[in-house]
Amino acid sequence: MDIKKMLQSDHVKPYISKARYGIEKEGQRVDLSGDLATTDHPEKISINDENPYIQRDFSETQMELITPVTDSLEELFSYLSAIHEVAYRSMDENEMLWPLSMPPSLPKKEEDIIIAKLTSADNVLYRRHLATTYGRRKQMISGIHFNFQFGDELIEALFKSQSETNDYKQFKSDIYMKTTRNYLKHQWLITYLFGATPSSEENFFEENSVNEPVRSIRNSKNGYTNDEDVQVSFISLQTYIADISSMVHKGLLIEEKEFYSAVRLRGGQQVSDLEDDGVKYIELRNIDLNPFETYGISYEQAEFLHLFLLYSLWKDEGANCDESMNVGESNNEIVALEHPLEPTQFKQEAEHILDELESLVTTLHLTVSEELFVNLREMLIDPSKTLAGRLYSESKKSSQGQVATSIAKENYDKSWDKPYQLTGFTDMELSTQNLMFDAIQHGIQVDILDRHDQFLKLQLNDHVEFVKNGNMTSKDSYISTLIMENKTVTKKILHQHGFRVPGGEEFNNIEQAMRSYELFSSKPFVVKPKSTNYGLGISIFKEGASFEDYQKALTIAFKEDSSVLIEEFLNGTEYRFFVLNDKTLAILSRIPANVKGDGTLTIEQLVNQKNQDPLRGLDHRTPLETIQLGELEVLMLKGQGYELDSIPKKDAIIYLRENSNVSTGGDSIDVTDLISEDYKKIAVDAVSALGAKISGIDLIIEDLKVPAATENAYGIIEANFNPSMYMHAYPYQGKSRRLTLNVLHYLFPELLQNQE
Amino acid sequence: MDIKKMLQSDHVKPYISKARYGIEKEGQRVDLSGDLATTDHPEKISINDENPYIQRDFSETQMELITPVTDSLEELFSYLSAIHEVAYRSMDENEMLWPLSMPPSLPKKEEDIIIAKLTSADNVLYRRHLATTYGRRKQMISGIHFNFQFGDELIEALFKSQSETNDYKQFKSDIYMKTTRNYLKHQWLITYLFGATPSSEENFFEENSVNEPVRSIRNSKNGYTNDEDVQVSFISLQTYIADISSMVHKGLLIEEKEFYSAVRLRGGQQVSDLEDDGVKYIELRNIDLNPFETYGISYEQAEFLHLFLLYSLWKDEGANCDESMNVGESNNEIVALEHPLEPTQFKQEAEHILDELESLVTTLHLTVSEELFVNLREMLIDPSKTLAGRLYSESKKSSQGQVATSIAKENYDKSWDKPYQLTGFTDMELSTQNLMFDAIQHGIQVDILDRHDQFLKLQLNDHVEFVKNGNMTSKDSYISTLIMENKTVTKKILHQHGFRVPGGEEFNNIEQAMRSYELFSSKPFVVKPKSTNYGLGISIFKEGASFEDYQKALTIAFKEDSSVLIEEFLNGTEYRFFVLNDKTLAILSRIPANVKGDGTLTIEQLVNQKNQDPLRGLDHRTPLETIQLGELEVLMLKGQGYELDSIPKKDAIIYLRENSNVSTGGDSIDVTDLISEDYKKIAVDAVSALGAKISGIDLIIEDLKVPAATENAYGIIEANFNPSMYMHAYPYQGKSRRLTLNVLHYLFPELLQNQE
Repeated sequence: MDIKKMLQSDHVKPYISKARYGIEKEGQRVDLSGDLATTDHPEKISINDENPYIQRDFSETQMELITPVTDSLEELFSYLSAIHEVAYRSMDENEMLWPLSMPPSLPKKEEDIIIAKLTSADNVLYRRHLATTYGRRKQMISGIHFNFQFGDELIEALFKSQSETNDYKQFKSDIYMKTTRNYLKHQWLITYLFGATPSSEENFFEENSVNEPVRSIRNSKNGYTNDEDVQVSFISLQTYIADISSMVHKGLLIEEKEFYSAVRLRGGQQVSDLEDDGVKYIELRNIDLNPFETYGISYEQAEFLHLFLLYSLWKDEGANCDESMNVGESNNEIVALEHPLEPTQFKQEAEHILDELESLVTTLHLTVSEELFVNLREMLIDPSKTLAGRLYSESKKSSQGQVATSIAKENYDKSWDKPYQLTGFTDMELSTQNLMFDAIQHGIQVDILDRHDQFLKLQLNDHVEFVKNGNMTSKDSYISTLIMENKTVTKKILHQHGFRVPGGEEFNNIEQAMRSYELFSSKPFVVKPKSTNYGLGISIFKEGASFEDYQKALTIAFKEDSSVLIEEFLNGTEYRFFVLNDKTLAILSRIPANVKGDGTLTIEQLVNQKNQDPLRGLDHRTPLETIQLGELEVLMLKGQGYELDSIPKKDAIIYLRENSNVSTGGDSIDVTDLISEDYKKIAVDAVSALGAKISGIDLIIEDLKVPAATENAYGIIEANFNPSMYMHAYPYQGKSRRLTLNVLHYLFPELLQNQE
Repeated sequence: MDIKKMLQSDHVKPYISKARYGIEKEGQRVDLSGDLATTDHPEKISINDENPYIQRDFSETQMELITPVTDSLEELFSYLSAIHEVAYRSMDENEMLWPLSMPPSLPKKEEDIIIAKLTSADNVLYRRHLATTYGRRKQMISGIHFNFQFGDELIEALFKSQSETNDYKQFKSDIYMKTTRNYLKHQWLITYLFGATPSSEENFFEENSVNEPVRSIRNSKNGYTNDEDVQVSFISLQTYIADISSMVHKGLLIEEKEFYSAVRLRGGQQVSDLEDDGVKYIELRNIDLNPFETYGISYEQAEFLHLFLLYSLWKDEGANCDESMNVGESNNEIVALEHPLEPTQFKQEAEHILDELESLVTTLHLTVSEELFVNLREMLIDPSKTLAGRLYSESKKSSQGQVATSIAKENYDKSWDKPYQLTGFTDMELSTQNLMFDAIQHGIQVDILDRHDQFLKLQLNDHVEFVKNGNMTSKDSYISTLIMENKTVTKKILHQHGFRVPGGEEFNNIEQAMRSYELFSSKPFVVKPKSTNYGLGISIFKEGASFEDYQKALTIAFKEDSSVLIEEFLNGTEYRFFVLNDKTLAILSRIPANVKGDGTLTIEQLVNQKNQDPLRGLDHRTPLETIQLGELEVLMLKGQGYELDSIPKKDAIIYLRENSNVSTGGDSIDVTDLISEDYKKIAVDAVSALGAKISGIDLIIEDLKVPAATENAYGIIEANFNPSMYMHAYPYQGKSRRLTLNVLHYLFPELLQNQE
């Protein structure tokens, strides 16, 4: 089987880079001084042992962050950062994650290292066994496990390009076995480049028991290793399975997961599943935490690992595999224990491998980051550029502990910097980011079915819910959203149910609307597009309008929709009631886009200044939107006698819009607790009349002190089937309402039952 | 109170023409020879006595068609025609409606006139009373009742423009009382113009008992009148109520509805409701069926009645109202009994009224049909232009019975001409027209909430359902339709559930898609926009594609959507499975737009010829769509070596599209009975996996004889949340499936329970 030829065949080429990835990343919780945390695992992270994203590893302080399996490195890192942010924002505010694989200074008494307080007795027993066998200190080492799977399309194409076997499962396992052997043989290169555990902190080793600094304590015999008697051959899948079983049988391993090789073959839950199903993917376990990366590993590292695995599949093996793997292992031990600032004794071999890797990129037309090889070669030439080298050099200025603490603090600050967003998903809407945050925190699996379209699949055990845009769910009927989408239909139905709605007419062409000027000219009225959202194309005339202004407003509105409504303008303040499942959960008052004069700056300058606020941005990616300076704003200013370069008096409030939507630059103020129950009930009943379960319904109320039952006390303007939720969570003023969490609880009521 | 001044005030002017209308139209069922039907009321018209649109009046053969209340005459006539069409298409195929108010020749024995077989004993008893009091023959006369209400805005504006009273209810009743009195005073003019019962048919009168011809038997003492002792004053609402009550008390009337005045005041169900609520609207009862109008009354007549009622409100009354009304009544008797071809003796008065009407139009800036006054004046000058005159003149050539039969036959043909549509609603989608037809037939109230948007409210007793586009309902969840709208998400979910879907990729920009050329170039594949419907922008390459064609297909697809899918092309025939509530109700095979060569015509000419078929049209208003000759069609022809002016050989089938959507000119063939249950179950299960209740799901099946469980037996292309239904009801070939009726039964399961 000529794998090199197969990899270059035209049928294989399109799929050569297809792969799936997953990362498990451990790390110790510490306080802001860098001391091991003494608190329990954060309560905010739900479903204890079973959260698929955030778990405890050996100790109560050792957080394990687990990404889902992804098809791209971009998505992998999106999830990795999101899970980090959820972890950070769920911990005590004075806690952070230790950025090194080697733990921070440990308690003097080993028993003061607290084994993870899991609910499953088996899980606790297993950890007790580890504590007895290896000692609690050793178990406090953290690392990255990098799960890797060649794309199915790639393996299928390879399979089809040969004729030696028609046993697909065996073929696939062979692919992984070869890859694994070559990886193990050259693992010392990974240790050289990315080893990052030069020194230990207090109370990890018996005093003076080891020489430090090295490249990687963790990847040396002083790290995380099995008893020397544990010998497992990778010569074939069958020998691997047989050896592991035999070790377990002999009592040298309690179960497969205790086998600490740099690579673990993965099939199903048990080793025996490997026998039935073959190798599905492999787990690289020899990656130290990269101290200089917020999430413990860089994109370039992951890219290199993928390339290195392709190389391992590509490269011919010598005759005696077991022998050369043993050489590989002892080379790794040598490299791991080298001084981090000294060149490695395998420099020449390393250069040769890099040459081969680079030529492989050319041969297979692979795409890699421009700087990848430059950086790798630099690390080879200058050991101080390796991770261990960098960490050790930095540490000499103060101490490794201080360096780690200061890095941890930077990561901590970063994770709290924009608490409303998930760094990896800022291309998605804020409400969706918030919902994803809540889901991860509550242990609900999040599968992004369509990132561009904000389409999520949420799953908790067997319970699946689909959500789009954060609040479009299975709970609303199709027709109720179509009713809300159609303002004329909404009003008709509300009117039939006895709610007050503004009178008005619908027009389907501008000429027809022009002819009806007399119907509205002398009254307060609003011109608005029938179906569009976010207040676009709306003009308000509080004291009637000239024919010219009427015509202009119609032109603007007809730009947004082929149907336009002209409606009676109701006096009062507009409130947005967020109703979910027959409850009013939040009420916002929204103030139209405005600036406050300082007597010096022009309106345009004031707007630009106000837009500098990092909370303001575009397209619902920030809690508030940038104020625009378009046609409508200019028209509105003109109505008040201003132009863009007018300089308003000090403290004068200048409005740039009539409509108060946050999406057109308005300010949001939470008033939920200020509004009486009778109005909340009006909102609930109106939403119910529309047959809806989730709706943002807009009421005009002239005087909050007047009971809702009074005639003309309120008027309902419209109901929104996709009400934004982030503006309630991050109002300009007032209390935050985490509505995404309400949505989650509505979709998964079992979350609340679990809490009882 | 100066009503003239009030009507001219600026505040009233905008509302001057606002009104609401309703029509009740009776008519006798006859066979195609014009003989009174001997059959029962059509079984297809459901809920017997309570259908709000189609009822029986006095006799079993006398159909009463009732429009809902409308805000415009246009909508009124839309409904009137729709209800007629439902009535016609529900009757025996050899029955039609008699177009005259005077019944066709009646049975010799009065008892052979069958009283309507209603289920309510009260209703039957009342008709027996009428039979005894007036005779069955008299009760066989039919007519139009025109219900009229001034717009609330108009009455409110009038109320606000005066200060004499602040009792709105009384004010409103006074408005109607004055209007009624003036109407009654001048009712003879209506009789002159629109009287249309010059002669009776056999067995209506005792032989030679009356002189014929006249203008209106129905509006004379020989028509439909109470005993002379029945005297009711219209001087005020109070006298009206008191007089009616007294007549009932004396036994002269059995109830109010037996009071046969030309105008009836309408409040609630009972006269006593008038006392509580005042007059809500008035019912004009003196309109003979217009024999020359398919629906018994012309738009111009209705327009005239509205104008005449405004005139009645406007015109000053003399001092003695009761007296002048008596004069009006006796004048009416005179006019009714005049010879239809002789001028009326009140010609001068009539001219004066027309002058006043015309000047009122000017004064109040009213809009009326251009020809209205020309026609009215012509009728006044030339009595043969009046309805009675025309009917009598026509009848002289043969007989009135023959004229009526021939007109009835024309109306009959017209109502069956395009059985798939409702003439009054051809601007709406065919599926919505079909659903409205079914609803009317089943006695479900149809309220068009938004005509432009195909938005209906359906109501049966207290049960309300909203429907958009014929199949968007409360039964589907919002998220399931969003899933179906997103082809990528649909495929992911179906794939996760184990259904076979074509492999493929999604691209969000054309450059990214171009770079992936290699992934598809050598395989059969399809390029399609992600979200659009109706097969727009789809290109199919059955044997791979050149880079140029690949690029062109991408350009076409990206024109339709910002995301484009490239998918494996599955071999086989595409079938559309229509699934409703876990049942496959219909399956269509669709053949792409095509023409058959005749050896003479060019492809363009053949297309134009095929498009002549009246079943083909645009925008889902006909069962089949017009074949287009756009960019895609030209590309498709080019692929086969043709151009638009190529002349195909005789009988050669030339395809103009790859995709087979009916909406792009394809032909539809019903194959429901040809496809085995296992495939139907696949469709049902797949729709269920998407959480949907109503869906049109497209399966590719290579060989119908291969069981569905066989590997790769089928592939699912997409699921549609708004599948067109008319193409199943009116396939190009095969059995019709009335899916709108299934939708109706799904929404209103009580319809089926009623049948049991």
